[in-house]
Amino acid sequence: MTDTLRISGALSPVVTPFRADLSPDADRFVRQCRWLLSQDVGLAVFGTNSEANSLSVDEKVELLDRLVGSGLDPARMMPGTGHCALPDSVRLTAHAVKLGCAGVLMLPPFYYKGVPDEGLFRSFAEVIERVGDARLRVYLYHIPPVAQVPITLGLVERLLKAYPQQTAGMKDSGGDWRNTQAFLDAFGRDGFQVFPGAETFLLQGMRHGAAGCISATANVNPAAIARLHATWQGADADRQQARLDEIRAIFAKFPMIPALKAAIAHWSGDPGWATVRPPLVALAREQAGALVAQLEQAKFTMPGLRH
Amino acid sequence: MTDTLRISGALSPVVTPFRADLSPDADRFVRQCRWLLSQDVGLAVFGTNSEANSLSVDEKVELLDRLVGSGLDPARMMPGTGHCALPDSVRLTAHAVKLGCAGVLMLPPFYYKGVPDEGLFRSFAEVIERVGDARLRVYLYHIPPVAQVPITLGLVERLLKAYPQQTAGMKDSGGDWRNTQAFLDAFGRDGFQVFPGAETFLLQGMRHGAAGCISATANVNPAAIARLHATWQGADADRQQARLDEIRAIFAKFPMIPALKAAIAHWSGDPGWATVRPPLVALAREQAGALVAQLEQAKFTMPGLRH
Repeated sequence: MTDTLRISGALSPVVTPFRADLSPDADRFVRQCRWLLSQDVGLAVFGTNSEANSLSVDEKVELLDRLVGSGLDPARMMPGTGHCALPDSVRLTAHAVKLGCAGVLMLPPFYYKGVPDEGLFRSFAEVIERVGDARLRVYLYHIPPVAQVPITLGLVERLLKAYPQQTAGMKDSGGDWRNTQAFLDAFGRDGFQVFPGAETFLLQGMRHGAAGCISATANVNPAAIARLHATWQGADADRQQARLDEIRAIFAKFPMIPALKAAIAHWSGDPGWATVRPPLVALAREQAGALVAQLEQAKFTMPGLRH
Repeated sequence: MTDTLRISGALSPVVTPFRADLSPDADRFVRQCRWLLSQDVGLAVFGTNSEANSLSVDEKVELLDRLVGSGLDPARMMPGTGHCALPDSVRLTAHAVKLGCAGVLMLPPFYYKGVPDEGLFRSFAEVIERVGDARLRVYLYHIPPVAQVPITLGLVERLLKAYPQQTAGMKDSGGDWRNTQAFLDAFGRDGFQVFPGAETFLLQGMRHGAAGCISATANVNPAAIARLHATWQGADADRQQARLDEIRAIFAKFPMIPALKAAIAHWSGDPGWATVRPPLVALAREQAGALVAQLEQAKFTMPGLRH
């Protein structure tokens, strides 16, 4: 059931740069993605931390075209393509497959709450059927604190049975290791890839068969996260994990997306990176200063970021 | 601050008909809207009960064009135009204004949870500024059980101050009369129109200065709801309200949107009306039978629906 070469490792839900007029800045985006790849981190563009749901489908198609058109390897890409509206999910998913993306990270439709698994099954099934491409690899996106619509064991079981090729794995951003472990235990042997949604669970995940992690802070601390993924069986793995946790904990004191962008703005020397789209709000100057001060005190840097 | 002729009364978040292939059926939609207008109910198309967030922006533009192109009066329309992504909200709002719609019902961006009022203010402000049309009338949509992003008193105060012409009112679907009353008390004297989100609060609302109601069950029980709105000062108002509540309570035993569609399918004699888009699931045959049986026992009918 497993392909020989599935995407794995540390992936970044790449933050999306905006110009002052709030339009997406494809040039900055390509540069950032190129840097992340150079740090051995894959591109889970259009994730929660990408403000993907604040972008129109047209904007996402355009950004993805620019990435692939700039020579970045689609085999290292897992764009988020799940929307509330079926035609939107179908359109972006089909486009990602056409461009050769390794997989897509798919939110369930997230407006209606308390919907039955039968309805979620039909949602994913419709996308898979309508895209109708044997190359499609779907990673289900479980992020109950935000989407408020969970991916359950029963749903994955049904999808694996109906679409064994397409149902490739999941990202678990629930923050509960027992849930991640339950999915690994239930489906890991079938080649179903589980990505914890933060590097906090990277070492524990690797020891239990996870495929890597997809983490907000892989935007800012990519090389260290990728290194633990590559060397998790080494003697210093626990020390590496502790260091990752130390940096993550600093970011976690602030609103995550504005904090990621503030750090990139600081270390890239490009203040425009701090811009977010409403309903998010950029860090105030004092907050950004406090973040940078704490990171500097922890001897954090972003090597090679200054383009 | 109040326009001489704002939209008011009983409005229906019109359910959206789908063909068997799940595409929106504009012909059925136009017929249904025409029937609702004939029952003296206005058209809050693209609401929660319309499965609006399961439709692409293109589909909504097309349906709205068909309504207005069919001669239905845009002065009786308040389409839902709030999306997660700013460009989507701007596009559909601008289109609604261009077509002459009386107002738009605007969800806040609803993917990110716990966002500050500052971010929500900027979201609405960006839409108002970018649409840039003096005719725009925004009705803010407070539906915390679904959107999970509330409209607060402080947010309305800021919007009224910055955009007194455009900030026309709100729909309160929170189901808490004290909240509805708080908005009426705070802003009613400025001409800010408050629509309770169910006819359950219609009489109480009218007695406290509400503008009418926007209710799921106005899809199926329109004339009776419109009649109470028109005659709420009459001697039989409490009796009318009790009768509305009796019918509403039957629908409330079932998943609301599938139940509305099942009732329309039954009384229109058009079984295709039962179709919903995933992630919703149509009522099972036995459920639909139970709904109809209970409604018939309550002597409920839908006069004039059979097209």
